[in-house]
Amino acid sequence: MDIRSSALLTDFYQLTMLQGYLERGMEDTAVFECFVRTMPPQRGFFMAAGLAQLLEFLENVSFSPAELDWVANSGRFSRSFVDYLERFRFAGDVQAMSEGTVFFPNEPIVRVTAPLPQAQFIETRLVNLLHYQTLIASKAARCVLAAAGKPVIDFGLRRAHGAEAGLLAARAAYMAGFAGSATVMAGPGFEVPVFGTMGHSFVQAHDAERHAFEHFAEVQPDNVVLLLDTYDTLKGARTVVTLAPRLRERGIRIKGVRLDSGDLVEQARQVRRILDDGGLRDVQITVSGNLDENTIQQIVAARAPVDLFAVGTRLTTSADAPYLDCVYKLQEYSGRPSRKKSEGKETWPGAKQVYRHYDQRGRIDHDVVTTATDTQAGTPLLRPVMESGKRSGTSPSLNQICERATAELATLPEEMRQCRQGATIPVQISSVLRDLACLVDKRDEAG
Amino acid sequence: MDIRSSALLTDFYQLTMLQGYLERGMEDTAVFECFVRTMPPQRGFFMAAGLAQLLEFLENVSFSPAELDWVANSGRFSRSFVDYLERFRFAGDVQAMSEGTVFFPNEPIVRVTAPLPQAQFIETRLVNLLHYQTLIASKAARCVLAAAGKPVIDFGLRRAHGAEAGLLAARAAYMAGFAGSATVMAGPGFEVPVFGTMGHSFVQAHDAERHAFEHFAEVQPDNVVLLLDTYDTLKGARTVVTLAPRLRERGIRIKGVRLDSGDLVEQARQVRRILDDGGLRDVQITVSGNLDENTIQQIVAARAPVDLFAVGTRLTTSADAPYLDCVYKLQEYSGRPSRKKSEGKETWPGAKQVYRHYDQRGRIDHDVVTTATDTQAGTPLLRPVMESGKRSGTSPSLNQICERATAELATLPEEMRQCRQGATIPVQISSVLRDLACLVDKRDEAG
Repeated sequence: MDIRSSALLTDFYQLTMLQGYLERGMEDTAVFECFVRTMPPQRGFFMAAGLAQLLEFLENVSFSPAELDWVANSGRFSRSFVDYLERFRFAGDVQAMSEGTVFFPNEPIVRVTAPLPQAQFIETRLVNLLHYQTLIASKAARCVLAAAGKPVIDFGLRRAHGAEAGLLAARAAYMAGFAGSATVMAGPGFEVPVFGTMGHSFVQAHDAERHAFEHFAEVQPDNVVLLLDTYDTLKGARTVVTLAPRLRERGIRIKGVRLDSGDLVEQARQVRRILDDGGLRDVQITVSGNLDENTIQQIVAARAPVDLFAVGTRLTTSADAPYLDCVYKLQEYSGRPSRKKSEGKETWPGAKQVYRHYDQRGRIDHDVVTTATDTQAGTPLLRPVMESGKRSGTSPSLNQICERATAELATLPEEMRQCRQGATIPVQISSVLRDLACLVDKRDEAG
Repeated sequence: MDIRSSALLTDFYQLTMLQGYLERGMEDTAVFECFVRTMPPQRGFFMAAGLAQLLEFLENVSFSPAELDWVANSGRFSRSFVDYLERFRFAGDVQAMSEGTVFFPNEPIVRVTAPLPQAQFIETRLVNLLHYQTLIASKAARCVLAAAGKPVIDFGLRRAHGAEAGLLAARAAYMAGFAGSATVMAGPGFEVPVFGTMGHSFVQAHDAERHAFEHFAEVQPDNVVLLLDTYDTLKGARTVVTLAPRLRERGIRIKGVRLDSGDLVEQARQVRRILDDGGLRDVQITVSGNLDENTIQQIVAARAPVDLFAVGTRLTTSADAPYLDCVYKLQEYSGRPSRKKSEGKETWPGAKQVYRHYDQRGRIDHDVVTTATDTQAGTPLLRPVMESGKRSGTSPSLNQICERATAELATLPEEMRQCRQGATIPVQISSVLRDLACLVDKRDEAG
């Protein structure tokens, strides 16, 4: 079973609900929407991501013989249901915000229109795919904004939550404006530029730091970035100065150094001074180690001489907000709009569209969420991306998505670009949608 | 490329370091150890997990032709290095704590002894696998302790960080004492018991809640757990009371109800009263919705009539501590012990062993970390699990690991079983190990 496309990568209740729908012939058209209910306290915006992987999943989801056997042998489902699963394919329509789009709470980012069992069954993996990349792209975008034009690289595979998370984090971060990733597979997988030089173990495995540096420079002459803090950062910097002329004679240029511990602002200043005094003004300084948008912002604000930021664990786990309140909810079945009224988890009913309004300078002013059939002024954000289970048109390349994401970040008001706490965009609920909610409530109370 | 066993699921610097080691013939034996540097503020212990997946990875890691092509075509490595990668296999020894073992900061949970390039190369995926399951097992164990004997189930696939995280979270949580998971694939994948009934959409898709309940009971007569909070929880409970006799006539018993929103303590009490008054004393109450060990503890302390807890997002993302400071560090190369001295990230040198000491009641008193060659009193925690790249003996089943985990949790002092903040176990560094560190530092300063 391939875990990524397996139909069994789902919640068991999808199967029990499906059997229920099928036994009653409940196969009319349903509309589900995916959205995030609330904004985490430190954040001001989200960036939509994961659509490419979702569409790939929807095009391929099916039950393998081994999976059908498991369902049949569980003893909890009818033979006719297993036969249905054998034929199961997703043949619905999808409307979505393009990847890289900035969005806010209660705005649908994906709308699925399909026969109820199909639209229902895909819920778990749909949320699993959209949630994680959206989480990471949203975090990465903040790091990019904080870095104020300096490149940022993803170093976070090892503490990402599993293989897929590490790989998709590299994609989501690149989309949001990162320069690349240390994750090799992001190269062949997504054409993300891949970076890396040496770890502390490389230095430790040599009998002296200077031997490790010289040795590395000889082996990777086009990629000489030396890690300074294994023993003593400033000593490491002086070793680089001593080594540089010897390497230069052999045509090898030291490209950079990396600092991975201690007070990075202070270390960067002292190392910069040592390098400059040693005639190594063009050697760049990379910093890493527990970075996130806040520490990057502090380093930038202190005008520390840092040329490149490497962000690891706190990016790939979105450490300050490790999940979003991302859900996929039934909005309409068989032409009948509906909504949950659960305490604190109420939803707006019906198929919806989001309209964006900009100010004269091209910055987002506000968004309006309304019904899909209501036409409003502003730019509609949901567009058709899949019809009858097949992608509409050609999908954008990751580089095209990057360009969109950069353009989107440029539409954020200045205080949001500076990630000021509490700065966000108001989302209005149209009167048409409010009226629909009242009608639905009255109907349900009468029912 | 299969993402889970792919050799390219690694950091690029592993490749650049490897080429360096090989060009200098640095293939002597290296010892690396994996450990967690610090305890997150709210936590008191860790539970080791992920070893089974690590050993599977070590037995299978190799470069496919497509992967070799990518490395060759990157233009950053020599032909002889690509030839080496083609032959690459892990043939080292591994000592490890058994899965389910309780442990503390600075205690190695896995020690790898192998030729330097092999021991180095596996770093990224080793940390990626051990870190995540250890993170989740440690969190899940706290939920199990908080539930004080009541069953707990994992509902967290959708907001887990990707496919692998969701699946491995189900395994890690079951290991730590969960009763099962909603993730279907955890059944065929790990023989984890799988649970699930209905979501809100099932209720919404019907024209009335009572129809949804009756319909579900007919389709899944052995699995009737009804979700009450789609519209109004107490109304939902009264509907269950009305429905029960009609179902009983047809031989269908309502097993339980689920509450997923609002004040769960208050809701559970009111629902319990409605059910009891309606003669449904044996109908169990499951609660879900933003649960973690703290909310479970509050519900238990309030003596709310809850029979089963379902924990989702906050489990699978380990929301209060979404990562551990888990590292894999070179301890010795070619018989020469070494250590990092990076500020705030110093390590203890050399191959190590952990000895556990219990009090008279069988509770953990303290641990001692010492060198691998030093023999101490107490129970050694690291044991051989792989020799020359092959597993030693038979691996324990997941149920055997569960038993160990339960036994381990029973060795925690009472205040740690109650997850009291700040309660933890002292880890002593032996004088032998301290002396070794001094020797290494003197050597490095002289060098």
